Amino acid sequence: MKYCSECAAPLSFRIPEGDHLPRAVCDACGSIHYENPKLVAGAIVESEGRVLLCRRAIAPRQGFWTAPAGFMENHETTADAAIRETWEEAGARIELGPLFSLVDLPRISQVHLFFLATLVGTHFAAGPESLEVRLFAEEEIPWDEVVFHSTKQTLRRYFDDRRRGQFGMHTFALD
Amino acid sequence: MKYCSECAAPLSFRIPEGDHLPRAVCDACGSIHYENPKLVAGAIVESEGRVLLCRRAIAPRQGFWTAPAGFMENHETTADAAIRETWEEAGARIELGPLFSLVDLPRISQVHLFFLATLVGTHFAAGPESLEVRLFAEEEIPWDEVVFHSTKQTLRRYFDDRRRGQFGMHTFALD
Repeated sequence: MKYCSECAAPLSFRIPEGDHLPRAVCDACGSIHYENPKLVAGAIVESEGRVLLCRRAIAPRQGFWTAPAGFMENHETTADAAIRETWEEAGARIELGPLFSLVDLPRISQVHLFFLATLVGTHFAAGPESLEVRLFAEEEIPWDEVVFHSTKQTLRRYFDDRRRGQFGMHTFALD
Repeated sequence: MKYCSECAAPLSFRIPEGDHLPRAVCDACGSIHYENPKLVAGAIVESEGRVLLCRRAIAPRQGFWTAPAGFMENHETTADAAIRETWEEAGARIELGPLFSLVDLPRISQVHLFFLATLVGTHFAAGPESLEVRLFAEEEIPWDEVVFHSTKQTLRRYFDDRRRGQFGMHTFALD
């Protein structure tokens, strides 16, 4: 961020009065441009004991498997974002269950949310951002080819909880 | 957002190739400026059955009571944000418990998170953004003077759960 998005003047980086962190400040028009963490929402989609994963067609980590998830848009809810991303990436209609994990990723300033969900019907198909979409039984999951850490850790906790017979809500941070 | 923050050229608003929503696009340098929902983190701080609320010294809703909460910063976790906001607004050290509510506010593109917490020690004091900080028993809370909706609804659920003897995780949307 180098120029003010309101008036195009060059930005200064300094602590505004009454604040405690440096911000991108415009000395010409007075705008302060805050930067905040981004939310990613996704779903652990179950169908007859198997879980839906997408093989990524795009960077980063093209060719690796992950759960459907993506950046939340303005004016949508976290639940709607998870449903939308599952439709876009996996061509799947889902019924959303409870929130299952909230994963803090402070290094990259993101927070990832995963909901439990069940596949509605049997249809799914790779969207433009996926090479392939598949249902995996736990023992079939190619763990070495699963990204990202938040998804992988969420999936591990999902199968642990399923074995215990009770799904909890998991809040954890990853570096 | 009118000008590119990377090169100061005027922005166009159009759907980039491969996307499905209009974005602020720079035709000069190719940057796409995404806008995403913001996260607010806060705490329902309990001490000997009472709950800590702050009377706001600043707009919006100056003079009204609310739980300590505020915008997450880059490179912090949701838990750290809740602890920091409680320190800044209420001068209170807390021990954070589990996540209690996730509130979607799609109209204003925000997601609010509240953690359960207990006050450490007995000290608290109004920070620069608060006129007054006080512990309230449930029957003392001036509900008509409590903002915002996400806080109010979270507090209602907190007292409901306490009466039931079990705290759940609450996910809900407000307009």
